[in-house]
Amino acid sequence: MPRYSEDDIIARVFAPIAGAAALGLKDDAALLAPESAQLVVTTDMVVAGVHFFADDDPSLVAKKALRVNLSDLAAKGAEPIGFLLALALPPDWTNAWLHAFAAGLAEDARAYGAPLIGGDTGATPGPLTISITALGRARRFVPRTGAKPGDAIFVSGPIGDAALGLVVRRDAALARRLSDVARDYLIGRYLLPQPRLDLAPWLAANASAAMDISDGLAGDLAKLCRASGVSAVVDLPLIPFSDAAHEAIAIDPALFETAITGGDDYEILACVPPDSTNFIETAHAAGARVTTIGKAIAYDGSPAFRDRYGQVVSFQRPSYRHF
Amino acid sequence: MPRYSEDDIIARVFAPIAGAAALGLKDDAALLAPESAQLVVTTDMVVAGVHFFADDDPSLVAKKALRVNLSDLAAKGAEPIGFLLALALPPDWTNAWLHAFAAGLAEDARAYGAPLIGGDTGATPGPLTISITALGRARRFVPRTGAKPGDAIFVSGPIGDAALGLVVRRDAALARRLSDVARDYLIGRYLLPQPRLDLAPWLAANASAAMDISDGLAGDLAKLCRASGVSAVVDLPLIPFSDAAHEAIAIDPALFETAITGGDDYEILACVPPDSTNFIETAHAAGARVTTIGKAIAYDGSPAFRDRYGQVVSFQRPSYRHF
Repeated sequence: MPRYSEDDIIARVFAPIAGAAALGLKDDAALLAPESAQLVVTTDMVVAGVHFFADDDPSLVAKKALRVNLSDLAAKGAEPIGFLLALALPPDWTNAWLHAFAAGLAEDARAYGAPLIGGDTGATPGPLTISITALGRARRFVPRTGAKPGDAIFVSGPIGDAALGLVVRRDAALARRLSDVARDYLIGRYLLPQPRLDLAPWLAANASAAMDISDGLAGDLAKLCRASGVSAVVDLPLIPFSDAAHEAIAIDPALFETAITGGDDYEILACVPPDSTNFIETAHAAGARVTTIGKAIAYDGSPAFRDRYGQVVSFQRPSYRHF
Repeated sequence: MPRYSEDDIIARVFAPIAGAAALGLKDDAALLAPESAQLVVTTDMVVAGVHFFADDDPSLVAKKALRVNLSDLAAKGAEPIGFLLALALPPDWTNAWLHAFAAGLAEDARAYGAPLIGGDTGATPGPLTISITALGRARRFVPRTGAKPGDAIFVSGPIGDAALGLVVRRDAALARRLSDVARDYLIGRYLLPQPRLDLAPWLAANASAAMDISDGLAGDLAKLCRASGVSAVVDLPLIPFSDAAHEAIAIDPALFETAITGGDDYEILACVPPDSTNFIETAHAAGARVTTIGKAIAYDGSPAFRDRYGQVVSFQRPSYRHF
């Protein structure tokens, strides 16, 4: 099967989907002329066999690689400016794979107003590796470090869907016991994060601290608290779950912990000062689903998760880790 | 042997070497507040077994990964602001390797005023993969597209050293025939590019078009000409070679073509309008070695390389390509 040269990959596959700042991808670097707003830049790398399956739909792989970065921008209160793509292709790549990959990127670039503005394409003897760097601008950068005792803690959507989706992909017995709707929904949430960019302006205006949940709610809340020098109390019954997650947990109650501690949510975890309670109302009025799950307290060790009786629950493996 | 957790890698290895904009690497993104100058951003990924040898000195691997990006900034006329690092570690990584890698990065970050401002660390079942995104600011962005007929073409230093260094590493017979000085110099030029950041202000003030030479002088000049819609005439006897390159070519004349068409020079190729001839003098006065090798002409096909008799020479394999 004939394949593109390195130049052709750029000219035929990526240049057509690149933004104006990419200068037609004919240059080594992208030229940005940001306005007076604060510039935010973030990078995340995904690897076949680690962050996704090598035979996943290439357009979904592309979207996930971009969206995990857009999710970081959203959590910082930033709107996307564009992104750079560094791509290492494994020995068995094909033109068809690349076209499908680029088509997925282009769809999301349009949907989120985040054009491709540069990149690098090379070969690897190993698995497909995708590194994306996203740039954004924020009226105000929302740090991890700003939470204060008394702040309300909220999340932007149902928790645990993606971690359960990964379990469902690996556990055929569980998959068979779930309804078709629940199974497809959970797997879809694993494959395709929803970056909460609609919340970015609200976060910039209201949040004292925020991050996106990529390594599980329990572990990421602990990180946010550590960065801010506070502790937190979370009421487990307040954590929002999807109908599909409820269905999975009803089949296997151990999946409750998976949902709280598993990775890949890409929902936003944020703290809001007590005098900003109208934040929740304005977010809801705009159609964004946010749910208060607890509050920040003066430093007192790790965040406490309480069950319906007020008893503190501990988790076996509080966070996803690569090592 | 005990190894760091993912959090510890960030806290113990990278946070100590990160710049102020990285916010202690406690955040998902870096906050930049650029001044009125133009912001330039570039990304390059390097992979063990493709761009370097897996057992190369980790501090040199780190420096090369950073410098290939700084070289892009230099060619665009930009001074570094900082860089983001995405790192995928292979199964056999060690703490000692990581410390040496970070030490190399920190040395170059200081030397070039390019602090680490963010990143991502993960695992790969494949080879070590390093993706760096560098940001810089330029008084004027120097494009690839601005060359005009009549412009002088120059390079910033000796050509072909790195490509010859790679040959020397692979060819023990050649290595034995070279003097120790020449062998060490050529291998050093392969391992450690010298980004020509001292030239960046001159390029911003004077150059009509520029790029760094990463895929060989012949192929990269063809790219620059194509982007600018011009052709070029280069006089081969004017191309500067190091003493070591001369020594290697004397042993094997076929290495002349390797020097002109091999990759990894990371010297700057630039065009200067004929009324900017004092550019060369001011560059020399500042100690930067630049050499005029030819001139741009009206479009007339691919660039022509002429030998000492004025005969046009063609190359078997004009450029390095991954595919």
